[in-house]
Amino acid sequence: MHSFLSLIAEEDVPQETIDDLKRKMVTRKVPKGHILLRKGDKNSKAYFVKSGCLRSYAIDEKDKEHIIMFAPEGWFISDIDTVANRNSAQLYIDAIEDSEVEILDSELINVFVASTPLALQKLNNRIAVLQKRIIMLMSATLQDRYIDFLETYPEIVQRVPQKMIASYLGVTPEALSKVRGELLKTKDEH
Amino acid sequence: MHSFLSLIAEEDVPQETIDDLKRKMVTRKVPKGHILLRKGDKNSKAYFVKSGCLRSYAIDEKDKEHIIMFAPEGWFISDIDTVANRNSAQLYIDAIEDSEVEILDSELINVFVASTPLALQKLNNRIAVLQKRIIMLMSATLQDRYIDFLETYPEIVQRVPQKMIASYLGVTPEALSKVRGELLKTKDEH
Repeated sequence: MHSFLSLIAEEDVPQETIDDLKRKMVTRKVPKGHILLRKGDKNSKAYFVKSGCLRSYAIDEKDKEHIIMFAPEGWFISDIDTVANRNSAQLYIDAIEDSEVEILDSELINVFVASTPLALQKLNNRIAVLQKRIIMLMSATLQDRYIDFLETYPEIVQRVPQKMIASYLGVTPEALSKVRGELLKTKDEH
Repeated sequence: MHSFLSLIAEEDVPQETIDDLKRKMVTRKVPKGHILLRKGDKNSKAYFVKSGCLRSYAIDEKDKEHIIMFAPEGWFISDIDTVANRNSAQLYIDAIEDSEVEILDSELINVFVASTPLALQKLNNRIAVLQKRIIMLMSATLQDRYIDFLETYPEIVQRVPQKMIASYLGVTPEALSKVRGELLKTKDEH
């Protein structure tokens, strides 16, 4: 099982810092369907997924869900605006499988960030992923966006309901089904 | 005129670091229309806009431009994936007005990041803006997206051609024009 601590074990982090993180970090089981963060919440945390899968999503005026990201084992997930800038959450975060998470509050996040360049790299990666997602949303065909989803989340494609993948891609399940059919056909022809 | 150095002047940055940045940082005039970064470029830099306005954009398979962000005075702009992860650029960056920029290569960015928590805050802000942009693209009405554009970029709305604002919002200039008309009408009624 993944742990946030195994992630930093190979980094040049002082033992004292590791002990500090170990002592203060809370591990929690989160049953499928449980909501960890709601829009408007103030006191946000970052979650490192040890097992299972979380997702973040927005709900629009018509009560429709739009999935922003998935977080399977080994991923961090948070509404960073609440963590970094102490704004109210824009997002919801819930578990789409029975999951186990390690909870990092803002104090622990600061300890992590100060202790290793890895934290900065994670932030840069997050920016790169978000930037790519905007480019894809604005300019790529649905087929390219689906292929990008498969490359970003190879470990969860069999575990996540099709309607959630459609919500992540911003299309109807019917449109997604059509694209999957086309891709399978192309594969068969080669 | 803004300068990257005035931005960090109020931070607790050692004089030695400031001198180092001053000595190594290159300032450059960029005429309107000049392209600073092209898709596929490897050696990317971050630009701090002293005056004028830059933008980043993607070009899709049908040669259509999609504007990712604007950077008026006081903003940073880069394709962070090339800066942080040394991948090929996905984006183009050009000047939409005669501009003057300060150029930060990866060495200077590292100096900046190591010298002050401000750098981290800038990265967190960037993540928050990107996250919000994805939420808006996926779930907000065009009217809300336009209002968000006005709030994000109050200083450039009069300076940027309508067709670029439409490209940023992911709609046709006609759809944007309709929404602007509706907003003016609502304003007149109150």
